[in-house]
Amino acid sequence: MIKQYLLAPGPTPIPDEVQRAMAATMIHHRTPEFSKIFSEARESLKRLFATQNDVLVLASSGTGAMEAAVANLFSPGEKVLVVNGGKFGERWVKISQAFGLEPVQLKVEWGKAVNVDLVEKHLKVYPEIRGILVQASETSTTVLHPVREIAQLTRDGPLLVVDGITAVGVLPVPLDAWGIDVLVTGSQKALMLPPGLGFIALSDRAWKQTEAAKLPRFYFDLRLERRSQRKATTAFTPAVSLVFGLHAALKMMEKEGLERVYARHDRMARATRAAAIALGLKLLAPENPSPAATGIMLPEGIDGDKLLDTLREQMGITFAEGQDDLQGKIVRIAHVGYMGAFDVVVAIGGLEMALRKFGYPVKLGQGVAAAQEILMEALD
Amino acid sequence: MIKQYLLAPGPTPIPDEVQRAMAATMIHHRTPEFSKIFSEARESLKRLFATQNDVLVLASSGTGAMEAAVANLFSPGEKVLVVNGGKFGERWVKISQAFGLEPVQLKVEWGKAVNVDLVEKHLKVYPEIRGILVQASETSTTVLHPVREIAQLTRDGPLLVVDGITAVGVLPVPLDAWGIDVLVTGSQKALMLPPGLGFIALSDRAWKQTEAAKLPRFYFDLRLERRSQRKATTAFTPAVSLVFGLHAALKMMEKEGLERVYARHDRMARATRAAAIALGLKLLAPENPSPAATGIMLPEGIDGDKLLDTLREQMGITFAEGQDDLQGKIVRIAHVGYMGAFDVVVAIGGLEMALRKFGYPVKLGQGVAAAQEILMEALD
Repeated sequence: MIKQYLLAPGPTPIPDEVQRAMAATMIHHRTPEFSKIFSEARESLKRLFATQNDVLVLASSGTGAMEAAVANLFSPGEKVLVVNGGKFGERWVKISQAFGLEPVQLKVEWGKAVNVDLVEKHLKVYPEIRGILVQASETSTTVLHPVREIAQLTRDGPLLVVDGITAVGVLPVPLDAWGIDVLVTGSQKALMLPPGLGFIALSDRAWKQTEAAKLPRFYFDLRLERRSQRKATTAFTPAVSLVFGLHAALKMMEKEGLERVYARHDRMARATRAAAIALGLKLLAPENPSPAATGIMLPEGIDGDKLLDTLREQMGITFAEGQDDLQGKIVRIAHVGYMGAFDVVVAIGGLEMALRKFGYPVKLGQGVAAAQEILMEALD
Repeated sequence: MIKQYLLAPGPTPIPDEVQRAMAATMIHHRTPEFSKIFSEARESLKRLFATQNDVLVLASSGTGAMEAAVANLFSPGEKVLVVNGGKFGERWVKISQAFGLEPVQLKVEWGKAVNVDLVEKHLKVYPEIRGILVQASETSTTVLHPVREIAQLTRDGPLLVVDGITAVGVLPVPLDAWGIDVLVTGSQKALMLPPGLGFIALSDRAWKQTEAAKLPRFYFDLRLERRSQRKATTAFTPAVSLVFGLHAALKMMEKEGLERVYARHDRMARATRAAAIALGLKLLAPENPSPAATGIMLPEGIDGDKLLDTLREQMGITFAEGQDDLQGKIVRIAHVGYMGAFDVVVAIGGLEMALRKFGYPVKLGQGVAAAQEILMEALD
């Protein structure tokens, strides 16, 4: 019997309230009952995205919402600038290529944030760029990109398309105030839901662009969706139980208060970083770390894959691994969604024990203590 | 949003597998489907109680099973010896008195185990004693009483009636091998279920005594229950969903293996005691501690009630308080049931933070480290 601790950046743990909401008896989606729940959730999503515009709910994963952004804004052969500093940056490249765009890649060293000056230079070198595709939080490298600063460059320029999958609900990413053109997220991160819902909101000028865009789209035709969703229904069959859960999760987040939700994520991330440093470990993203997850470099000679196996199989703790060149060299500890102070305590307590077992000279409790110091901020 | 950690000695956390089993569609209890599940659970309970005799399942809390023991074994005016070293010892006194028995109380200082020599002396002074009523684990004081040794005294003497509510499934209490006459437990402890089921098993000589006993009984008439349960049904309506859960919980315990279940509880308790000592705190029961829960004396001047409020309200951690004279002076941290290594880490991490907040000079992480040292024994 080993209790499970799901501490990877998605899927994330599901609160009881959400589980129970999703377990409600199935109803038909073309009913006033569904419409009421759906409309209330959509109103709440506007507050989460900090926008006066529509937030559309899609029956898809977050990648579906990313594809919807591309398919609805651009035309074949157009150039887009992709900030590529990790696996999800690469995903923008692949989607753009699949749809016949010409992505210009601004490659960023993994663990670093994109340099805004370089973005500006690229826009000057390639004035034909129609959009910038970027992650707010690049989950694979636990980095925050400077979306707010990039938005300063794009007010009258290319459309700024932001993957907010591990950012929306983790930190403020206000669409209207920052001048973001498209913001997408998914259900299985800060929204504390299983995977299966994608979310997307567009600025007014992005909505205009959906009419000019010539890429093919049917399931993800946002014009169609907006018409339907404004009538409190959906163009195609919605994921009914996930929408029940969404309604409950948004209520929980609003009850906690978005400011407190953001502060909680920030505190957990700071506590985890302090713990890593106290244990003599290096951070993957020391300069621009994301509050969604913390990447920690493992000491030389420790096989990260085996360490993660031990954590999962013998302690029930699931962290995320490193990807590509970072495979086996890092662990990523998530803070996103239904997580609290004692998830950090468990994560660091387990990491200490695993490192000790693998021969790294850990002083047990030292990382936990550093985390506790910060987690105590939450007490009155 | 504060995640909840239920670390009190009952109700205890319910595993997913058990929750899902209990959520199955309701069936009628006079059906082959129910009988199959019920019989399988009863077979498994025999292994848990380590007896060839019947283990009866009652729709009651553990106290109901305690009452069933008294009502089925004794006659009005008979003397019983009650080991009274805590709230549950007192409960034996109250049940005995309610049924018109004459309890002779062997009072034991809270936090201490009963002295077997004193039990023997009482039996000599009162040769008319017909039964000894004792707790295997006295939850209110986190003490283990020496049931095995007491059983040596009662082989041909009075009936030994053991409240195993926080013992069965926590440590071995083999009914047949030790010569216990009656062993009772409840569902909301090591069996990882909600409250609502009581369990009772009797030795052969206790079964004989049920015929001679003259106390009134109807709902708890064990002769009637045995006849019914041997036919894979119950005398009165069983708690159907709890029986579904029981079936699932026993499967989980047998999959883990009872020896490993006992070792897990023992390890968690040792880790917690080591943590308390590392923090400079005193144990309530340093000499004969129960592996079900650990009582920790709070430092002078700290209001235990307020400390527990802070833990519960600000950290989501529920410990048990002290009772009667110990109110406000101790915390009790449970290890019973669906608990693992990181429940100890959370408990001690939270206790350290709470003590620091209340002004006790805690070195954060010091208790956690002492616990981790012991919890690491479980790793390959």
